[in-house]
Amino acid sequence: MPVSVLMPWLDIDLPDGMHAHLYDGDGPPPEHLEEIEFYVMPYDRGPNPARLLDRMSRLKVVQSLSAGVESLLPWLPPGVRLANGRGLHDLSVAEHSLALIHASQRDLPRWFAQQATGSWARAHTRSLADSRVLLIGYGAIGKAIERQLVAAEALVTRVARTARPAEDVHGIAELPALLPQADIVVLIVPDTASTRGLLGAAQLAALPDGALVVNVGRGRAIDTSALLAETRAGRLRAALDVVDPEPLPADHPLWRVPGVIITPHIAGGSASFHPRARRLVAEQLRRFAAGEPLLNVVV
Amino acid sequence: MPVSVLMPWLDIDLPDGMHAHLYDGDGPPPEHLEEIEFYVMPYDRGPNPARLLDRMSRLKVVQSLSAGVESLLPWLPPGVRLANGRGLHDLSVAEHSLALIHASQRDLPRWFAQQATGSWARAHTRSLADSRVLLIGYGAIGKAIERQLVAAEALVTRVARTARPAEDVHGIAELPALLPQADIVVLIVPDTASTRGLLGAAQLAALPDGALVVNVGRGRAIDTSALLAETRAGRLRAALDVVDPEPLPADHPLWRVPGVIITPHIAGGSASFHPRARRLVAEQLRRFAAGEPLLNVVV
Ligand SMILES: NC(=O)c1ccc[n+]([C@@H]2O[C@H](COP(=O)([O-])OP(=O)(O)OC[C@H]3O[C@@H](n4cnc5c(N)ncnc54)[C@H](OP(=O)(O)O)[C@@H]3O)[C@@H](O)[C@H]2O)c1
Ligand SMILES: NC(=O)c1ccc[n+]([C@@H]2O[C@H](COP(=O)([O-])OP(=O)(O)OC[C@H]3O[C@@H](n4cnc5c(N)ncnc54)[C@H](OP(=O)(O)O)[C@@H]3O)[C@@H](O)[C@H]2O)c1
Repeated sequence: MPVSVLMPWLDIDLPDGMHAHLYDGDGPPPEHLEEIEFYVMPYDRGPNPARLLDRMSRLKVVQSLSAGVESLLPWLPPGVRLANGRGLHDLSVAEHSLALIHASQRDLPRWFAQQATGSWARAHTRSLADSRVLLIGYGAIGKAIERQLVAAEALVTRVARTARPAEDVHGIAELPALLPQADIVVLIVPDTASTRGLLGAAQLAALPDGALVVNVGRGRAIDTSALLAETRAGRLRAALDVVDPEPLPADHPLWRVPGVIITPHIAGGSASFHPRARRLVAEQLRRFAAGEPLLNVVV
Repeated sequence: MPVSVLMPWLDIDLPDGMHAHLYDGDGPPPEHLEEIEFYVMPYDRGPNPARLLDRMSRLKVVQSLSAGVESLLPWLPPGVRLANGRGLHDLSVAEHSLALIHASQRDLPRWFAQQATGSWARAHTRSLADSRVLLIGYGAIGKAIERQLVAAEALVTRVARTARPAEDVHGIAELPALLPQADIVVLIVPDTASTRGLLGAAQLAALPDGALVVNVGRGRAIDTSALLAETRAGRLRAALDVVDPEPLPADHPLWRVPGVIITPHIAGGSASFHPRARRLVAEQLRRFAAGEPLLNVVV
């Protein structure tokens, strides 16, 4: 009997002896869920894809396309292996970080507003080149961001949990000494007990006037009210793909502070994700069929 | 008698025997113009700085901070040397090109519009990574743009006037074959007889649906009405720092086409210009004082 795979796309070459069913996370679930042995979960489709898990009695593997799978663990049936999508979004998140930084430094909101009125009023702007960027989080995505910052001739200082002097990485304990030297701070750390409120009132106050605070990791790393106070006062600027809370309520004052740009947690969801996700899934299916160890196994 | 220098800033160490006067291009001109021997022209301040030239009877050198000095030549008194600002803007223009490209690929106008209403509606976007970029113009700025495109994992094809196969540069004669393969076209060529209308109706028609046309060189390289037709039809997108005519009249329809981003020729004018301009001027003054040949001499 062929191995049944449930996947969000069908345009992947399957190993012999596998049969694929389509489920993209929208609409009603497919029939015969009890046959599925390998489930590639649709990306970024809310809780519905996880709700199918307890109806898959023959399930052996869940392949998530997200890097963070904490919210999935409670749904995982015992004995089922879980692999994550580590790496699939790195480039997409890095690229969006650059989009946010360029937009802030080069005043894109101003030019878009002028475009609406047909105004040719010119002005000089900040630049990213020569800016001192404090990159907090030097994991997979942090490194991808750094490559693009360096190509733009920004001056990057690396910070992670623990200092690694050989790699020129500062430990987070050095933050108080580093903040006053930063024109731009980029946060790309996970949501953990140690990152919650990493930038609070005291840390934000240590930044120079006019500094730009960028968050593309998780919203809770910044104290929202402290950031609101500093940006409202016009002392700091911000470019945020993640905020606390999410979704940000429509009447939240942060939406309308001049010098603040907000995108709705979409850094990871761009076209560059799809070919990378397909390559990973094809490789995982090949490994599964051949009885080889899977990549990115979490549980 | 000390050598009198007229400059837009005074925070530069001068060689012995030089005396600096300030003129930043705004407000009334300084007194004693007849003493000035070395004139560093304020950047991007319209025609006033050039109008002072015929009152400087002892003038030996004009240092422009622009790369293009065609419009200055008619004002230049006989026997006066002219040096240009080649290279000072490369990084600034390259950076703004990336800002425009990211803004288009990652849908920043959409998110900024949503921000105004406090909407958290999410969606996936295009990306720059994996995009096939046709870079038309592979001079100083084109090369600076390419470095940042490559760091973003875009796939760059180089085009210049003449083919240079050893450098992997295509000649402009190959354009018809290259256009259908481009997701993004970036124009960074000077305004010459051979670049005028380089992208006309036929060339634009050869681009695939949804392609992005970026112009950061000179506006006349694109046929504005052909671009207007293609973007209005929703077939192409555009991100333009230069247009034809400039300034674009407030009632010009191009301002309001969805999928078109326009900035008012400000790519060169960002903060990264200033330290580079100061370094060039300090070096030129040193050379002038020491009797050494100047850099960037045009006439
Ligand atoms: N906006 C989006 O759409 C989006 C998409 C994908 C991911 N993300 C977020 O991005 C996060 C980072 O992803 P990644 O793949 O780069 O993760 P990663 O490879 O695990 O790297 C995490 C980095 O954060 C550092 N870190 C952790 N706790 C820290 C602390 N208390 N202080 C300072 N640094 C700390 C780590 O330091 P060490 O190197 O010392 O361990 C590491 O350098 C993810 O966890 C996710 O929350 C957001
Ligand atoms: N938007 C702004 O604010 C701003 C600021 C500064 C400059 N600019 C513009 O950017 C232009 C380029 O600057 P740059 O410093 O890179 O100049 P550059 O070093 O002289 O390079 C010009 C490039 O354009 C190519 N080219 C010339 N005519 C061509 C044609 N007919 N077809 C195809 N390619 C052609 C050249 O080809 P070859 O290599 O074969 O000679 C060369 O690669 C400037 O001339 C200026 O107009 C705009």
